[in-house]
Amino acid sequence: MNFKYDVLVIGGGHAGCEAAVAAANIGAKTCLVTMDMNKIAQMSCNPAVGGIAKGQIVREIDALGGEMGRVTDATAIQFRMLNRSKGPAVWSPRAQCDREKYIWQWRTVLDGTPNLDIWQDQASELIVENGRAAGIKTVWGVELRAGSVVITAGTFLNGLMHIGRHKLPGGRIAEPAVVGFTESITSHGIRSARMKTGTPVRIDRRSVHFEDMEIQEGEMDFHQFSFMGNHRVLKQLPCWTCYTNKEAHAALLKGLPDSPLYNGQIQSIGPRYCPSVETKLMTFPDKEQHPLFLEPEGESTNEMYLNGFSSSMPMEVQLEALKKIPALRDVKIYRPGYAIEYDFFDPTQLEHTLESKVIEGLYFAGQVNGTTGYEEAAGQGMIAGVNAALKSSGGGEFILHRDEAYIGVLIDDLVTKGVDEPYRMFTSRAEYRILLRQDDADARLTEKAYNIGLAKKDRYDWWMQKKEYIDRIIEFCKNAPVKPREVNAFLESIGTTPLREGCKIFDLIARPQINMANLSEISPQLKELLDAAPNRKEEITEAAEIKMKYKGYIEREKMIADKMHRLEDIKIRGRFKYSEMLQLSTEARQKLEKINPETLAQASRIPGVSPSDINVMLVLLGR
Amino acid sequence: MNFKYDVLVIGGGHAGCEAAVAAANIGAKTCLVTMDMNKIAQMSCNPAVGGIAKGQIVREIDALGGEMGRVTDATAIQFRMLNRSKGPAVWSPRAQCDREKYIWQWRTVLDGTPNLDIWQDQASELIVENGRAAGIKTVWGVELRAGSVVITAGTFLNGLMHIGRHKLPGGRIAEPAVVGFTESITSHGIRSARMKTGTPVRIDRRSVHFEDMEIQEGEMDFHQFSFMGNHRVLKQLPCWTCYTNKEAHAALLKGLPDSPLYNGQIQSIGPRYCPSVETKLMTFPDKEQHPLFLEPEGESTNEMYLNGFSSSMPMEVQLEALKKIPALRDVKIYRPGYAIEYDFFDPTQLEHTLESKVIEGLYFAGQVNGTTGYEEAAGQGMIAGVNAALKSSGGGEFILHRDEAYIGVLIDDLVTKGVDEPYRMFTSRAEYRILLRQDDADARLTEKAYNIGLAKKDRYDWWMQKKEYIDRIIEFCKNAPVKPREVNAFLESIGTTPLREGCKIFDLIARPQINMANLSEISPQLKELLDAAPNRKEEITEAAEIKMKYKGYIEREKMIADKMHRLEDIKIRGRFKYSEMLQLSTEARQKLEKINPETLAQASRIPGVSPSDINVMLVLLGR
Repeated sequence: MNFKYDVLVIGGGHAGCEAAVAAANIGAKTCLVTMDMNKIAQMSCNPAVGGIAKGQIVREIDALGGEMGRVTDATAIQFRMLNRSKGPAVWSPRAQCDREKYIWQWRTVLDGTPNLDIWQDQASELIVENGRAAGIKTVWGVELRAGSVVITAGTFLNGLMHIGRHKLPGGRIAEPAVVGFTESITSHGIRSARMKTGTPVRIDRRSVHFEDMEIQEGEMDFHQFSFMGNHRVLKQLPCWTCYTNKEAHAALLKGLPDSPLYNGQIQSIGPRYCPSVETKLMTFPDKEQHPLFLEPEGESTNEMYLNGFSSSMPMEVQLEALKKIPALRDVKIYRPGYAIEYDFFDPTQLEHTLESKVIEGLYFAGQVNGTTGYEEAAGQGMIAGVNAALKSSGGGEFILHRDEAYIGVLIDDLVTKGVDEPYRMFTSRAEYRILLRQDDADARLTEKAYNIGLAKKDRYDWWMQKKEYIDRIIEFCKNAPVKPREVNAFLESIGTTPLREGCKIFDLIARPQINMANLSEISPQLKELLDAAPNRKEEITEAAEIKMKYKGYIEREKMIADKMHRLEDIKIRGRFKYSEMLQLSTEARQKLEKINPETLAQASRIPGVSPSDINVMLVLLGR
Repeated sequence: MNFKYDVLVIGGGHAGCEAAVAAANIGAKTCLVTMDMNKIAQMSCNPAVGGIAKGQIVREIDALGGEMGRVTDATAIQFRMLNRSKGPAVWSPRAQCDREKYIWQWRTVLDGTPNLDIWQDQASELIVENGRAAGIKTVWGVELRAGSVVITAGTFLNGLMHIGRHKLPGGRIAEPAVVGFTESITSHGIRSARMKTGTPVRIDRRSVHFEDMEIQEGEMDFHQFSFMGNHRVLKQLPCWTCYTNKEAHAALLKGLPDSPLYNGQIQSIGPRYCPSVETKLMTFPDKEQHPLFLEPEGESTNEMYLNGFSSSMPMEVQLEALKKIPALRDVKIYRPGYAIEYDFFDPTQLEHTLESKVIEGLYFAGQVNGTTGYEEAAGQGMIAGVNAALKSSGGGEFILHRDEAYIGVLIDDLVTKGVDEPYRMFTSRAEYRILLRQDDADARLTEKAYNIGLAKKDRYDWWMQKKEYIDRIIEFCKNAPVKPREVNAFLESIGTTPLREGCKIFDLIARPQINMANLSEISPQLKELLDAAPNRKEEITEAAEIKMKYKGYIEREKMIADKMHRLEDIKIRGRFKYSEMLQLSTEARQKLEKINPETLAQASRIPGVSPSDINVMLVLLGR
């Protein structure tokens, strides 16, 4: 049998779902191929979305018109804004979700997306015709043909699960692995390699001594993931914290000879920032304890997730170690933690559109590119989906730059530097992080997405209305006078220097003690203006405040970014024969040849390419 | 690793869930082993519960304290009472459910059941010690030990799926098969064989021309599955009907050479009363059309189920045939229908408790016994679960007789007659079906279940209250006088003979035109009494009405059943050496030897054992 689409998306995880919806939203006839329609967007590891730098990615996905933010809002059972004690550049929203509701909310989204079909089947072969991706064949003998193919297969390709010395093929616990599809891709000259990840034990709530844990409550304020709609948390459920201890460590170390990570059974590299508990013990032998977070898996289930206790140790070792922790002394588990090895494809084989350099019309997104994290996957999914759709209709590219979005940083890092371990986003990876705040993702991205039809009109309209109102607030603050005798008592009461002479509200706002809340106490007009915001006034107020308070920082960073943009604008692909450029260092020659950068700026970010190599190229370009 | 329980249940489907809850409810430390905690009680075929004779089983499960009825009520999206035009002996409730909500409602039930753990893993080996089941080993190297083991593995054992000439191992679409476990069971001398079942295509609601179908609305009255709680249907969604036609038949027949059912690829036998559409064409070559029912899979999904179009034809054949049906001319499918072959174990190897005759402490329930249907599975599950729990605590048996429950008929048929095709319940299988009504399952079973701790106190109390109130109504009707001049106008108005002389309300009620509703119009006292019922007054009224209206039939059938009980009471196991009883026919000798019946009544039901064979035994027993 034979079906014909514009865009095929292979895999229904976080990358695949966003890719499929994005492609369909900009008008491509799209088919999402998934092995199991009932596990769409399954959160294979913990049922949480966001977190440091990841929360920003979700806000960006939302600003672009993607769905992860809305689905998260609709299914959250705990919401918090991390890093609140630091500057707004690093504020990061995070939500605990109901795992099953999350799946069904996504199914509802996919079901309601025009142009999008779902096909339940398993890819067995990539069809390539004249060097161009043309579709796939499936295990059930179906041919699905398309102008572009997006691969978002997660950990399923030749997945091999490990618990102690036991190994089983599988894409995820209880799900079969996909065998043969990698080989069909690599037969066309694309390189694959192996990575590893893991997940912790699942615990029965009824067996936990909560009195021996610290409670961690959610926050109930106006923040949410989506710029659209109104905040809704199903129910704020608490998370809980406890710690490993010497006895637990001893129990784990005793099992080390049977640890697949340390007895040679697993050779591939796992996520540095999400290590197994045994890796933590080996990496930090002096630490006497490590924190563990016990998180609910949903509103009604007893299943809980023990964040921080990822492991592939033999299960009796895992259980024995857990029982050494007072709060878990009587613990019952549903299943142990396990590790999984899977195939990924070196992302330096990709363009910034996530299209393969080897096979035209073939896109890769998510864990198959060597990343870790639902948010990183979803962000790549959107970009791959959009570009696959644009490609199939013959028009244009959609790329986010490093000063526009974490998603831009992520993809540029992947395609420029490659990965030697699962890549996770951090705020520290973004050189312009003051520009990449969670509060202003809409300002950065919504209009750009709207211009290609990715963000819809309602989103664009709401953003324009918000933008105008923010400007109005700022304008007001710039013009509203404050007189010393009216405000000095107040300023002294909050511990900041009184005024010598009159100024504008705007001039006060950079002071750390001052914020819109206390300003509106002294200016009834400001209060009135803030209260009259068209929708979600707290968010508008916060956005205006951050824009004013951090104006100097923001402008300086924008200037640096603009400078870099000049190098971004210098396209170099095809203009050099690197192998013959003896002026370059040997390393630079080799790396430039391998990556074949699009722009001089990208060239400058390749590890091993030095500023003097860039100068050589600048000179040769006649500048 | 090693866990110790009283009862292990292997498989989390309809049989396994009821088995686990039943065992736990009567106090056994129970563990449910399932490959996928997120697919507990998954309805592999259509998301509907009940139907003719099956609805009665669900009511019985509920009356016994099981959960299927309550879960169905909580997740129903359409409810109907089938056979309403016939007598109440064959009224059968049926509900369409939301497939995913059904799973999560069951998870909530399991999560909330004391004594019950869930272990996510896959059985690889049955542990037998001294001829007695002692536990299982799993693919992850765990040993789970228990006093009793219940096998409820559905279609997973050596499952092999078929679509056209394509074959793939799997326990169900998207789920791995279980390999090796059957062999570990048969190595102890238990026979297995193969059966086949199938499921239809899943259809995208958006591609259907509903204007070319007939609508089938649900009913919104007081009926529900559970005797407890109050009626709640999520939302009455319609189902739809259309028909196959000559063109569709021609398209299907063209594909016959590639049909695994007709080209020799599948040898095992499928369910006669749930045949594939290709089987319908072959069995009824003269029929020009077959009805199809398009049923929603849930409240919010576009996925729909095409009841009546089960098939394992090549998918292009399925699709082509569908498109010949006007309402489906533009149909889009999510996946085609498929067939699956799986292992079952001849149920004549079992006792009425569903314990193996070969291995003590080993129980089988559900599809592994050669049945089809969620309800048949669940009913067996309860009996196996209860008996496994009783066994592990060393006390007693819990058996339902043929005049007590459809579950009793089902199990007696299985263990006495065996199966040569998937067994499905029908009202015609029950010789005492006037006694086995959906309305009186509580009267038949709740007290019996309460006595062993299976039904809980609240259920028992509610039943006793209901019973007393029914008796009070009947007592009232027996004593309440009606006078000709008061009622004759009414009687004539509804077309029944007027009274010559006074009588009691009770004497009127057998008339077909008379019911409690119109009686209470002429008797304000009756109305008052009915209205004052403690809870669910319509159900109480209906129960009282049926008891009075069909009193004669019910009593006659009870008499016949009591007669048969005398044979049931004659235990014969171990009292005969059949092979040496030359007075018996050869066939009877062989069959009696094979089945080794518990009672003379059971012996009389073995196919091939004649009344004269029974007489021989009666004579030998000295009666």
